[in-house]
Parts: sequence; C-alpha cells; structure tokens
Amino acid sequence: MQEYFTGILLKHGFTQERALQCAEIFTGSSIDGIYTHGVNRFPRFIKYVKEGFIRVDAIPTLENKFGGIEQWDGNLGPGILNAIFATENVMRLAQQHCIGCVAMKNTNHWMRGGTYGWQAAKAGYVFIGWTNTIANMPAWGAKDARLGNNPLVMALPYNDEAIVLDMAMSQYSYGSLELSAMKNESLSVYGGFDNKGNLTKDPAAILTSNNPLPVGYWKGAGLALLLDLLSTILSGGLATHEISKKEVEYGLSQVFIAIDISKLGNHSAITKTVEAILKDYHQSITVEEGTKIVYPGERVLLTRKNNLANGIPVLKKVWDEINSL
Amino acid sequence: MQEYFTGILLKHGFTQERALQCAEIFTGSSIDGIYTHGVNRFPRFIKYVKEGFIRVDAIPTLENKFGGIEQWDGNLGPGILNAIFATENVMRLAQQHCIGCVAMKNTNHWMRGGTYGWQAAKAGYVFIGWTNTIANMPAWGAKDARLGNNPLVMALPYNDEAIVLDMAMSQYSYGSLELSAMKNESLSVYGGFDNKGNLTKDPAAILTSNNPLPVGYWKGAGLALLLDLLSTILSGGLATHEISKKEVEYGLSQVFIAIDISKLGNHSAITKTVEAILKDYHQSITVEEGTKIVYPGERVLLTRKNNLANGIPVLKKVWDEINSL
Repeated sequence: MQEYFTGILLKHGFTQERALQCAEIFTGSSIDGIYTHGVNRFPRFIKYVKEGFIRVDAIPTLENKFGGIEQWDGNLGPGILNAIFATENVMRLAQQHCIGCVAMKNTNHWMRGGTYGWQAAKAGYVFIGWTNTIANMPAWGAKDARLGNNPLVMALPYNDEAIVLDMAMSQYSYGSLELSAMKNESLSVYGGFDNKGNLTKDPAAILTSNNPLPVGYWKGAGLALLLDLLSTILSGGLATHEISKKEVEYGLSQVFIAIDISKLGNHSAITKTVEAILKDYHQSITVEEGTKIVYPGERVLLTRKNNLANGIPVLKKVWDEINSL
Repeated sequence: MQEYFTGILLKHGFTQERALQCAEIFTGSSIDGIYTHGVNRFPRFIKYVKEGFIRVDAIPTLENKFGGIEQWDGNLGPGILNAIFATENVMRLAQQHCIGCVAMKNTNHWMRGGTYGWQAAKAGYVFIGWTNTIANMPAWGAKDARLGNNPLVMALPYNDEAIVLDMAMSQYSYGSLELSAMKNESLSVYGGFDNKGNLTKDPAAILTSNNPLPVGYWKGAGLALLLDLLSTILSGGLATHEISKKEVEYGLSQVFIAIDISKLGNHSAITKTVEAILKDYHQSITVEEGTKIVYPGERVLLTRKNNLANGIPVLKKVWDEINSL
C-alpha cells in the first residue's frame, strides 16, 4: 500500500521524500485500523490535490514566536506534512521550555489526529492538540450545523508505545459514519438526527441531514465551540464559520501543545504511575461477561499486530477508486 | 452571604484574609448560579475542615520548576485558595514564556472549576485546566466506578468578561445530580444507570448506584482517564484510584495551563475574531421556536445580573444546615 500510494503521490507532483512521508501515514493509519482517515480517505486527498486546495510543495513559514509559542502559516500544504512538522517543532519548544505550543493557520485536514499524538508520545512527550473543521455539527438545541466537530487529541508515553485519545466532538466522526454507511451497519448508540429531526442510529440518514449528535449533547457542543475559538485566536487563522464559506474544507487552524515530562520526573517512576492507573482501570467489572475494558489506543495495538500479520482489509469499492487515481 | 461565610470560616481557624477569599468564591459561584459548588457545598467544606482533611493554614510549596512549568505541593490546603494561587502563578509563567503550566499535587476540591477560568480569562489569558477526583464514574461497558468525572475548564477573554466552559466528564456533575434530587426534578436526558443497570433520568437513582453516564459514552470515559493520567504524572500526585482508597475525597492532582494571548496578536483584532465566531453561532436556527443558543458562560452573566439585583435563591434546608455550622 505504501509503495502504491507513493507512486500515486509522485504522479501528482510530490517530491520523493514528501510522497513517502504521506504514504507512510496513510498506510500506518490503515494498519492501525483507522481506515476512515487512512486508505478510505486517500482518494479525496488526491482529489483536493488535483483541484489545488492542497498545495503539494508548500512548506510552513514562521509568523511569530514568543517564548514557548510559535505561530506558523501552513501555506495550504498537505495537512499530514504540516502537522508532522508542527509536532516536531513543538517537541523542540518543549525541550527548551518544558511546555511548548505551535499554532498553525492555513493548513489542511491532518487526517488521523492520533498520528501526531503517537508521534509525540513515542518520542517521550505529553501531547494535547486539536484542529477546527468545516461546520458539520449543530449546536445543542439547533437544527443547522454551525460548529465543527473539531477533533481533540491527548497522548502520553507508555513503555515503548503510547496512550492516545483521538476524539471528534460528534458522537461519531464523519469518517466512521461513512464507514458504517458503506458497510450498511447500524450505529451502537444514537449518532444524530434524520431529516425530520428524530434521533437515529442510521449513519446514512445522519450523513444526509448533516446533523450528528455532539458528544454529551450540550457539553460536546460547548467544547467544540471553545476548540474553534482557541485554534482561531492562537493561530490567527480561519474559524469554522469562515472555512464553511469555501467550496470544500481547507485552510484550517490547528494547535499543538507538548510537554517534556523527562524534566518533571524519573522515567521509570512515571511508567510505574501509569501502569498502576491502567491496572486499576483494567480491573473494571464489565457489564457483559467476557468483554474487556480497554484504554484509548489499546485496541490499536492489537489491530496493528493483526494487520501487519494478515494484511490490511480494504473495501473493494475503495480500492477500485484508488486504482483509478 | 459573604459576611456570614467569612464569620463561619474565622470560627474554624481561617485568617481574616483567607476567610474572606474563600467566602468571596463560595458567594460568587452562588451569584453566578453555580449553587452546587457555591452555597450548597459550603457545609461539606466546613465538615472536611473540622475533620482535618482540609488544612486551613497550609500554603503551597514549590517542588520543581523548569522553563514554563512549575510543580507545586498543595499541602492539603483549601482547594479554592490553592487553585487561585496556582492560577496566579501560571499567569506569571505565561507572561514570561507566553505559555505556562502549573501542576499541583496534594490539593483539595477546587469547588467550581470555572472560577479559575474566569480568573485567568478576565486577566487576559487563555486558560485550560483540570482536576482529578475520587472514582465516581464507570468506564464505558463497566459496572463499577473506577474513573473520576475529572472536570475540564477552558476559557478565553471576551470584552471585559469571558467565555468559560466548565464540564465534568459525567453527563451531569454530582453537584447537579444532588441539586436535581433535592428539588425532586427529573433530568432532561439519561444521566446514568440505576442499581439494576438500566439507563435512568432519576438523579436519586444515579446517586445511589454511583453509576453516572460518561459524556458521550466511551468518549467521555476515555477523556476522563487521560485527564487523570496527565494530572497525576504532571503533578507527581495521587491518581483517582489512590484518592479513592481514602475515607473521603482529598489530596487531588490538578493542572493549570495559561497562554498570554497579548503576545500573539492585537487585542482588538482578537476581540473581533471572537465576536464574529459568536455572531455566527448565535444565528443557529433553534429546534424550539423562541429559544436562544447560548455559549458557555453566557447564561452565567444573566444569572449574575439577576442574583445581584434580587438576591441569591437558597434552598431552606441548605441554609438551615449553614446556620448550624
């Protein structure tokens, strides 16, 4: 998959190095089971490159810096490459200041937000990051989508791996609604409203109404608003309402915060603390016998192992589309 | 109320200055309509002081500092005073480094988390902070409470006021469950499980089962776990599972992050950006005619005005208890 994607990216004007880096992330997300922002999303990424919304050669430029914070302009480069760059930079800032923040305007969809959580946490950093999006979720009590579902990522190192939370502010991300719709599957809990305003578990109906349910009703809606406000004022970039006036979703505002925990305590003591918390968490008594309570990122490790051994499952219609790129 | 509370606090060993500061916060939260962590909570605060869980004279001591981060020991002082102190300190760090972080161990319940969001935002800072709690919420798919509902606060300045999100990771905070139960009111959406494991809107049943619903099911549960992990490793303090072994909830771990946005852009440009976002948000078409979509903190301003004009409504049984302190 990585080789194949690299070839397609080269064909669309990416340099060898940048093609490889993008292909690696799309493939890695698919190996980790995040197909929605991996292989399934690759065709739309290429479409946006073709249409000029994503500029293959653009690299970020520094706008402003003060102490532990840097503001960058993403210059509409590929979201994955810009976000990797921002994460590298925020780790450098955290080395110097213990805590650092990179805010980036004019960037593009970073695909799987967890990518940057894994990147920072595997390098030994605590990571908190988020992005705004196009308007795709109504405020609580509203009918029209004026909020983004603005994914939030939190991560920390754990042994050689990481604990990574990657959550959109809608109960289901659009990626997972699309995947369930593609597979004709019903959602496990209400995911949004149909066109008549009734709560539904039908992903296709929610995709039609553009009316997904915010996580925890008023709470996720409030958090989504705050994430948009903060990414916009910290980066000096566009807010959800401005992005939503464009033809497609591009020119996003993102925030990356990293903390160098090696300066705050002994590595093995921190690992023991994390282990003790997870040990207690895993002792939870499950509602359904035989199930197991997992922490954010734990299932990813299992899927990664399975997919590395057995290959990445890809829906035929997704691969057919990729073959036509 | 403030004078009366000050008197009670003086009787329980607080110095004049510290009594006044605590009384001001309890009263201010009540004026703002957050009765659950204002007047209603005051008797339990005094109880914990009497029982020695809260040390009236303790002041925080610096444990470690590096760049923009400081680790403090709260020495089991009053949570309100410790959190005000931490917020003042993190603003000082943000002045120096643009972004700062204070992590505090061995502190106590900070009452209304929004207090510190308002404090920082009104002084011109972006604020992100959270606390862990005693275990009071099950992981998603679990029957027993092993997670805290770990409130998260995000705030930013807006004109002379602030936009402040203050959310526990349970769909309803324990404070609001207690208030609804006290008033014999039903919840507007499912708030948790009864003792038989059925979803319920009865606040008393949820208080009995100790089984509230995490915000957005698996998502709020995951976020609660991450907030506990981060507050514990950043502060070097106790995790939820350790706090839960104590007689009552004390010795918490908290994180305070502030960003000095005056260094990132022109004040009036930032205000205009925020205004434009709120203007779009307020244009939401409501499901129920005649209602209005409000941003986090907006309703507080209205309640504040009403309560300042008409007095703070207090439940008779709450005031009777306060009279006996």
